[in-house]
Amino acid sequence: MDSSDPLANAVPAATDRDRPDRRTLANAIRILAMDAVQQANSGHPGMPMGMADIAEVLANDFMRCNPSNPGWPDRDRLVVSNGHGCMLQYALLHLTGYDLPLEQLRQFRQLHSRTPGHPEYRLTPGVETTTGPLGQGLANAVGMALAEATLAAEFNRDGENIVDHWTWCLAGDGCLMEGISHEACSLAGHLGLGKLVVFYDDNGISIDGEVAGWFSDDTAQRFEAYGWQVVPDIDGHNAEAIAQAIATAREDRQRPTLICCKTIIGWGAPNKQGTEGVHGAALGDEEIAATRAQIGWADTTPFAIPDNVYAAWDKRAAGAALEGEWQQRYERYAAAHPELAAEFMRRQAGDLPADWSKHMMRHLHHVQTEGSDTATRKSSKAMIEFFAPRLPELFGGSADLSGSNGTDWNGHTAVGKPAYRGNYLHYGVREFGMTAIANGLALHGGYIPFTATFLTFSDYARNAVRMAALMGTRQILVYTHDSIGLGEDGPTHQSVEHLSSLRLIPNLHVWRPADDVETVAAWMAAIERAEGPSALALSRQDLPHLERDVPGVENIRRGGYVLHEPPQTPEALIIATGSEVAIAVATAKTLAAEGRAIRVVSMPCLDLFETQDAAYRESVLPAHIEARVAIEAGVSALWRYYVGPRGRVLGVDRFGESAPAADVYRHFGLTEAHLANALLELIGEPETA
Amino acid sequence: MDSSDPLANAVPAATDRDRPDRRTLANAIRILAMDAVQQANSGHPGMPMGMADIAEVLANDFMRCNPSNPGWPDRDRLVVSNGHGCMLQYALLHLTGYDLPLEQLRQFRQLHSRTPGHPEYRLTPGVETTTGPLGQGLANAVGMALAEATLAAEFNRDGENIVDHWTWCLAGDGCLMEGISHEACSLAGHLGLGKLVVFYDDNGISIDGEVAGWFSDDTAQRFEAYGWQVVPDIDGHNAEAIAQAIATAREDRQRPTLICCKTIIGWGAPNKQGTEGVHGAALGDEEIAATRAQIGWADTTPFAIPDNVYAAWDKRAAGAALEGEWQQRYERYAAAHPELAAEFMRRQAGDLPADWSKHMMRHLHHVQTEGSDTATRKSSKAMIEFFAPRLPELFGGSADLSGSNGTDWNGHTAVGKPAYRGNYLHYGVREFGMTAIANGLALHGGYIPFTATFLTFSDYARNAVRMAALMGTRQILVYTHDSIGLGEDGPTHQSVEHLSSLRLIPNLHVWRPADDVETVAAWMAAIERAEGPSALALSRQDLPHLERDVPGVENIRRGGYVLHEPPQTPEALIIATGSEVAIAVATAKTLAAEGRAIRVVSMPCLDLFETQDAAYRESVLPAHIEARVAIEAGVSALWRYYVGPRGRVLGVDRFGESAPAADVYRHFGLTEAHLANALLELIGEPETA
Repeated sequence: MDSSDPLANAVPAATDRDRPDRRTLANAIRILAMDAVQQANSGHPGMPMGMADIAEVLANDFMRCNPSNPGWPDRDRLVVSNGHGCMLQYALLHLTGYDLPLEQLRQFRQLHSRTPGHPEYRLTPGVETTTGPLGQGLANAVGMALAEATLAAEFNRDGENIVDHWTWCLAGDGCLMEGISHEACSLAGHLGLGKLVVFYDDNGISIDGEVAGWFSDDTAQRFEAYGWQVVPDIDGHNAEAIAQAIATAREDRQRPTLICCKTIIGWGAPNKQGTEGVHGAALGDEEIAATRAQIGWADTTPFAIPDNVYAAWDKRAAGAALEGEWQQRYERYAAAHPELAAEFMRRQAGDLPADWSKHMMRHLHHVQTEGSDTATRKSSKAMIEFFAPRLPELFGGSADLSGSNGTDWNGHTAVGKPAYRGNYLHYGVREFGMTAIANGLALHGGYIPFTATFLTFSDYARNAVRMAALMGTRQILVYTHDSIGLGEDGPTHQSVEHLSSLRLIPNLHVWRPADDVETVAAWMAAIERAEGPSALALSRQDLPHLERDVPGVENIRRGGYVLHEPPQTPEALIIATGSEVAIAVATAKTLAAEGRAIRVVSMPCLDLFETQDAAYRESVLPAHIEARVAIEAGVSALWRYYVGPRGRVLGVDRFGESAPAADVYRHFGLTEAHLANALLELIGEPETA
Repeated sequence: MDSSDPLANAVPAATDRDRPDRRTLANAIRILAMDAVQQANSGHPGMPMGMADIAEVLANDFMRCNPSNPGWPDRDRLVVSNGHGCMLQYALLHLTGYDLPLEQLRQFRQLHSRTPGHPEYRLTPGVETTTGPLGQGLANAVGMALAEATLAAEFNRDGENIVDHWTWCLAGDGCLMEGISHEACSLAGHLGLGKLVVFYDDNGISIDGEVAGWFSDDTAQRFEAYGWQVVPDIDGHNAEAIAQAIATAREDRQRPTLICCKTIIGWGAPNKQGTEGVHGAALGDEEIAATRAQIGWADTTPFAIPDNVYAAWDKRAAGAALEGEWQQRYERYAAAHPELAAEFMRRQAGDLPADWSKHMMRHLHHVQTEGSDTATRKSSKAMIEFFAPRLPELFGGSADLSGSNGTDWNGHTAVGKPAYRGNYLHYGVREFGMTAIANGLALHGGYIPFTATFLTFSDYARNAVRMAALMGTRQILVYTHDSIGLGEDGPTHQSVEHLSSLRLIPNLHVWRPADDVETVAAWMAAIERAEGPSALALSRQDLPHLERDVPGVENIRRGGYVLHEPPQTPEALIIATGSEVAIAVATAKTLAAEGRAIRVVSMPCLDLFETQDAAYRESVLPAHIEARVAIEAGVSALWRYYVGPRGRVLGVDRFGESAPAADVYRHFGLTEAHLANALLELIGEPETA
């Protein structure tokens, strides 16, 4: 890049010509970004001003989208992984003709606007994923590009490519410093996702200042080591160079491409560009005026874009034509392959197969009748075996624990180059990348992804779990080895706080099934839940199959229910989850032999139980039964509320121990004897004692 | 590596010679590892058998340790980042003469043994860090090597190098797939930590099978991109090649070294080596017998090591001599620099300066008297300014948010090559690496590290926070922008569940101070807490300085206390933390004007409050006051217990919103008006209403 005079190419707004030049089009992004940030007195002008020229070339010459239909299945995907630069995306969406009027840009970062401080999926038309937490957008993009490759392999026929689009991603220094960039990009290189193109905004600045003080990777070499095509040393303010780089990227369909763009953060702000001062704060009136003068927009008022600039940006007609072409292709395809075409549309819509519920409910009752004692991770695998053939959109995977997690069902086929046809990914030991990639799969459409690791290592992926919940992606998180019950691997691997801490994430449903039947119900609920992720916490160790009547089976989906009821009016109740439910039932039965009447409430999904109406909750946990003990092999904090001031919680409020599972359970007092003692302390020793 | 006949060099146990050959010494590790795993019927024989030759060369020819004093400050550090291979480390410790008798190896993975399923710091002499969660040991090692470099720069004088040791790290494919390896190794390369040597166990196998199916990085090229010296293609079963590689590593003091060792997982097990089947399960009696025959130990019984092998391994005399040399050096140093020498020993011991408490208590009361309205992140910075000159072991840093986190106090000096003298690290956008590196700094000794990011991004580092708590490292986690109060950045950046989910981690103290005074108290407690980490959740926005009497000031350290008491007997109480405390006090005062008597309890550290005796807790939250409202800008779940069945919680049980902070607070109803209404609903409208 010629950095000696970065503004040498700046030209006045071409109000007197029909077609503004490229720099002017890019400057429209800069103007909107700096004005919106100034209006909000909050936000990040540096990235949009620095990447405007790149975005201009990409959007005007390469991206295939239809502003009038952000849901067109075969649109190109754009991910702004450096999401603080969202004003670049909002400006693009506005200028190209999406339903994002200027009034929304004026409302940047204000309550209930469609222009929040970081891009939010579902809120703004054209925003493909929520970004801000750095590096994750990059992983989402990998997931989208993977979805494109695998859907293409599955659906395209005879040259009728109904799936044929690109995934473009903007990423900054921060994204590339984050560890998740390693996980996601290593995997993208391994998979050879040739239709993924990442623009690295190499501006040399992060919030603490010049990145040379803490980031001196040879990023091009690093990505070559991942098997990427790298286009190095592109002047990110030279439209021709950018266009040439993108053309180079498109020529190589075997490797993802990283285009390393040297840019100047805040390009155009004469006194602040190239410094961290322009990253995350409004420029101020004075610098804005100076910028307007510098880039040739001196006469314009805030947010004012000349008509010819709008006209040159408008992509509505071109986008409609693109989708129209695709629609014709799809109709030819549908004529030749009507079932495939219908299936494609069903999967894009996220609808389940028509007979899904019927099959599943029948299976649920079947497992109640025919079930057996087994680890819930094995029950989970059996359930996947059952439903996967009926659910071709299922896309599984594990972070190198396929056998332990029980995710390698018989029908799984690992995807990989060159064919890509498959429904499973060996993610390697990459929990965070896996979870964010699966978010990308779900966001793309066409798939219901599940991912798997040990529950403890949900920690590694935690913010991607949060992002799934925030975006409402349908991802199923299979977390096995869910407690001290895993035994010998010890405290590093034994979840203690994880169950409850996952329960605290809004819009995440956390299931901890007690046996094979509850595992079936949990999977059903997770698959049927279109509005957000579900986590399944599953045991390593065998658990007994439990008896239930028909209402019991059907109430599992309420999240909590009466599993075991004594013949008399209960004088106490036990609340239990997962592997501790069998202990509860056994204890209740033992005490019944001594004449005590103990109810057992199984609470596989506290999140769902909380959504039940008050009458149902009261029917399960009647206020008058104050003698309550909760038992769960995890921290007790959340349960103290449910047992009330007179109750007790048997939990694990320390880190675990390395030993055989039974020894660890005894060590922590999670035994029938302890549970019985706790109950008897509350209700008094039996008279015969 | 010549993989055509990996056992070609195997030799019989040299029972008839005085000095067994290297392979025999390595085979002692293999024997102990496979026998212990077999005895436990649980564990991971593959890595110890695969890396035994490497460990043998390292331990016998290069490592400088004293088995009789695992706390020798200048010992070399060994980190087994692939911690599932802990039997390698236990075997080494046992054979070289640490206090880990054979009986402990027989008790591998049994309750209360010193040989748990993954290495645990504090439990086993010679184990420098707890590992198992992959990749983190590597980052711990980076922290240890950094500590060595910076302590050396600070303390060494005139050629008397009282700090001069190496950090050795074993890492597997899993460690290198994890994102944290990118963060930590990128930074290690940037810093040029020349005395860090990592052995990459390139055995081509992970749990799912051959890593070629999901991991095809050119790892050598990747590490060169980080600025490391890479020694490629070493036959990890050839002692001479290994020794030469280590010698090469030691020659370059400007760059960390990665030695890429081609190994065969489970080397020596004739039917299972080189497959995932040997990774994580006992070999079985048959394969063990075959292995014994294969490696020339056919006649030995389980756990039996020939005397001459023990003798050749014994490092007690050599280790004592090494420490003796160092002791002489230290004494010369102490004679020339008595104050520095004493300071070095104080910092190694982790003792605070003698007058620490006196200064801090005085400051606490001073701030109560002289304090002002300010954001607690700014109060935090002011507190650092105050105490840092008195605490030279403080080592700060931020994940690229130094200014926002308020961690860049005036006295901070960033470390970097070539000088290393300093007390601050710009970690870059690497939250997980940062937190694990800081664990390494704390484990090494000589430093009290603090690290910083936004509270939301604690997610990225969560398992390193857990490991800090599990190991009991004194790391202070500075988490600013702690709620929806950060405003415009929106839900991706607004913590909602984080405070409570951090509270669930055992042995972590979570502070959320309400004003400048509580911030001072929180920092005091965090620094004084030697047995584990503390997290400080700090506000972006300004908070009022609050009035307290002297007992109020002193009770902050109890974690919860009566901040505001009405003149009459209270009829209701509010529990609040952080930014909501001022809302609570203002509400109580408003209602007092209407004749209502409302107590305000500030609860900056729930973990500590829970450890107070019942009488104190009852004095703060008397059972008879059933009208209770808790208010916290986060999920309500944990507070429901404290307000009891009649109480209310004002919290945020959804994701946040992008808008100015005041608007977001109103949107979620965290206002004086809502709080007053909630109280009045509980206690009835005042008679005058």
